[in-house]
Amino acid sequence: MHLLIIGGSDAGISAALRAHEIDPAADITLLLADDYPNFSICGLPYFLSGQTPHWQQLAHRTDFPGIRVLRGHIARSIDAVARRVHVEHAGALRPIPYDRLIVATGATPVRPSITGGTLEGVYTLHTMDESFAIDRHITERSPRSAVIVGAGYIGLEMADALTRRGLQVTLLSRSTDVLPTVDAALARRVVDELHHHGVRVVSGVSAQRIDAAGAGGTAFALRVADSEGGRHGADLVILAVGVRPSSELAERAGAALGVHGAIAVTRQMQTNLPDVLAAGDCATTYHRLLDAPTYLSLGTIAHKQGRVAGERAVGGACEFAGTVGSQSLKVFDLAIARTGLLGHEARDAGFDPLTVAIQADDHKSYFPGAVPLQLRITGDRRSGRLLGAQILGDRRAEVSKRIDIVAAALYQGASVEQLNELDLTYTPPFSSPWDPVQLAAQAWQAQRAARGRSV
Amino acid sequence: MHLLIIGGSDAGISAALRAHEIDPAADITLLLADDYPNFSICGLPYFLSGQTPHWQQLAHRTDFPGIRVLRGHIARSIDAVARRVHVEHAGALRPIPYDRLIVATGATPVRPSITGGTLEGVYTLHTMDESFAIDRHITERSPRSAVIVGAGYIGLEMADALTRRGLQVTLLSRSTDVLPTVDAALARRVVDELHHHGVRVVSGVSAQRIDAAGAGGTAFALRVADSEGGRHGADLVILAVGVRPSSELAERAGAALGVHGAIAVTRQMQTNLPDVLAAGDCATTYHRLLDAPTYLSLGTIAHKQGRVAGERAVGGACEFAGTVGSQSLKVFDLAIARTGLLGHEARDAGFDPLTVAIQADDHKSYFPGAVPLQLRITGDRRSGRLLGAQILGDRRAEVSKRIDIVAAALYQGASVEQLNELDLTYTPPFSSPWDPVQLAAQAWQAQRAARGRSV
Repeated sequence: MHLLIIGGSDAGISAALRAHEIDPAADITLLLADDYPNFSICGLPYFLSGQTPHWQQLAHRTDFPGIRVLRGHIARSIDAVARRVHVEHAGALRPIPYDRLIVATGATPVRPSITGGTLEGVYTLHTMDESFAIDRHITERSPRSAVIVGAGYIGLEMADALTRRGLQVTLLSRSTDVLPTVDAALARRVVDELHHHGVRVVSGVSAQRIDAAGAGGTAFALRVADSEGGRHGADLVILAVGVRPSSELAERAGAALGVHGAIAVTRQMQTNLPDVLAAGDCATTYHRLLDAPTYLSLGTIAHKQGRVAGERAVGGACEFAGTVGSQSLKVFDLAIARTGLLGHEARDAGFDPLTVAIQADDHKSYFPGAVPLQLRITGDRRSGRLLGAQILGDRRAEVSKRIDIVAAALYQGASVEQLNELDLTYTPPFSSPWDPVQLAAQAWQAQRAARGRSV
Repeated sequence: MHLLIIGGSDAGISAALRAHEIDPAADITLLLADDYPNFSICGLPYFLSGQTPHWQQLAHRTDFPGIRVLRGHIARSIDAVARRVHVEHAGALRPIPYDRLIVATGATPVRPSITGGTLEGVYTLHTMDESFAIDRHITERSPRSAVIVGAGYIGLEMADALTRRGLQVTLLSRSTDVLPTVDAALARRVVDELHHHGVRVVSGVSAQRIDAAGAGGTAFALRVADSEGGRHGADLVILAVGVRPSSELAERAGAALGVHGAIAVTRQMQTNLPDVLAAGDCATTYHRLLDAPTYLSLGTIAHKQGRVAGERAVGGACEFAGTVGSQSLKVFDLAIARTGLLGHEARDAGFDPLTVAIQADDHKSYFPGAVPLQLRITGDRRSGRLLGAQILGDRRAEVSKRIDIVAAALYQGASVEQLNELDLTYTPPFSSPWDPVQLAAQAWQAQRAARGRSV
């Protein structure tokens, strides 16, 4: 049985390792387009900030026992009938046959088609090579300022990273605030944190064009024009407006695409092509709360889907349990995390959402170092079902693992009441007798009851 | 409807507040034996360490709207037939009638019946008055050294606290290590931490007698003789060998007692006496994994049981969801947390437990500040059911909220496989694509499979 895997990032490597673990006799080949197997894309901002001094540290793993890893091998086409992949390496094309194929081609940063989008000094950030290019630019040209286009995860992490490298950063955000993946009340606090660290935030705009602003002197190398008439000088521009699934290769072979143009897969990670599976950023993601496929480009999902695909490819019976949309982010000294659905997402899905916000200390205020957390909890007014939560607070306040408590409850389809019933730990330095997520659940229940009476 | 509550610590106050919230018209009287309503017993070590400078900070709440709080009122007897409680206040006894009664009399520290156990300078720690006495002793007499008898939560927290106050601390532990509520492998690391901060640990011994060692000079004021012939000089002795439920008052009124001598209650917090409920440290605790009552003296449980008792007392329909045994502790710079059952507890309960240990970094090692966590996960070999987990690591490594993820899974009766499937957050500064608790789950699954093959 020859298992061929296209892609050597999180999903591909996870699939290979799991297949080998389940069936040590399986013949496994993994095609890697570049020279960097299993490098952490999520770690690129920390390499660029200088917090991760050596790029080699970014490898999740460096050892792949039982797996034939072919570096610099680019899959050019899949013949799903003849069961082979045409692979380019060192200028030559050759077919590699397979019994089972896993497509794990990942995602590609969206490069907005604006004038000047490919000028020197304008970068996207998704690969090691792009990271090296940006790092070289900073080291060799000592840019004074940067414009970052996009205020999602990568945009915010890069604002933090480049500020740390001494650049004056301007962040262009298309939404009213930043980070459209959380509610505005929290996003505004992220903006405060950015301001506090000297980042200029220009919101409600998109980039319209980029010009080379003239060489040398005191002028900046580039100038970004935004949709509201603003002009922003910069020596470096990062385009961070999101990613799209790299699904063309599979599509050309006949794979059906689903939401957001990702390869449509079942919970068994099966595509519509026989013996062709797909996993990770190139594929759709089953969402447990929506009970439907969605698209989310996240390392956690890539790892999980890869593990399932690898196990299925060698005959295992598992399936992907699905996402509940759990995500976290550090920006300077803030942690922001969410899980489940935002109010508008829940409404679109047919729920009757109520979101309640509270502030609570991360631990008993009488123990030194207590800090306030902002919590928002969303539940279905009709059924009482828990639908999601968002937390923002100091990065030392266990924000992300608190969201994970809610994520664990969501996984099981818990009610808001059950979140409040959980037997969570307490000691004054770490929490309160009711954890803040439970205080939020209680506030939600009280507000639901009060509204019920007033209707 | 007159609701009478005996006890003004966590359970009693929670009951009163919840009853008032559900039925603002309810007539609620709360009897408080001392002058300190709703003070955090868990916070006493931090008052004594000096980290909580003002004792008033230890109040969870100071405002009790809609509740008649009678301070210095001691319930002397309950007449469950005539529905009244005989209450002593300022030397006089008077009956207070009730329609519903909640007994929340808490727990009492066990004072071992050893010679010298009541000498001056020998203390237990459970009330504000005891805290004041110890604090006064330290402030006025400048003791150089302390012997702490007992190495559970209070013993360890007091070792930390008194070291911080400048005392040389000797800790006498009855078990082979310390902290018998976690596995020995973790307990040994707690011992290392104690040693690292200058605490002498004498294990496998109990205190046999305490002598006044002679006044003045360089001699210590007290001398503790242990069961192995050791002699330990001290100027201060703390007895911290556990608590027992304060259930005598209810027992004399005809309440049936259950496990550990606690008042037997249903999940509705009902005793066997009509219209008499009980909650908190004086009552038994339903355990979800054991599906049986147990006894656990924890603030989290007292709050939850109090909330249920208060709601039921005014006609609500809720019930106590039960504990899964979640507990956490900070000792110097270490956090230790557990949830569920230890291996031997699971075996006693009829499970076929397998415990697997791993070490994993709290977050990606390429981001500064990563520290190793010690994780132990216990599951049932036959069914694959998750039974418990223990984590130890640096106090900044989100140990307690990581255990809470497992606690949330345990609440729902999850399998070890489902723990691995949870959609938890990831960003390099806070975790890994698989959280350490999931890596532990994977290691458990692999070891279970390997043992299955070898049998």
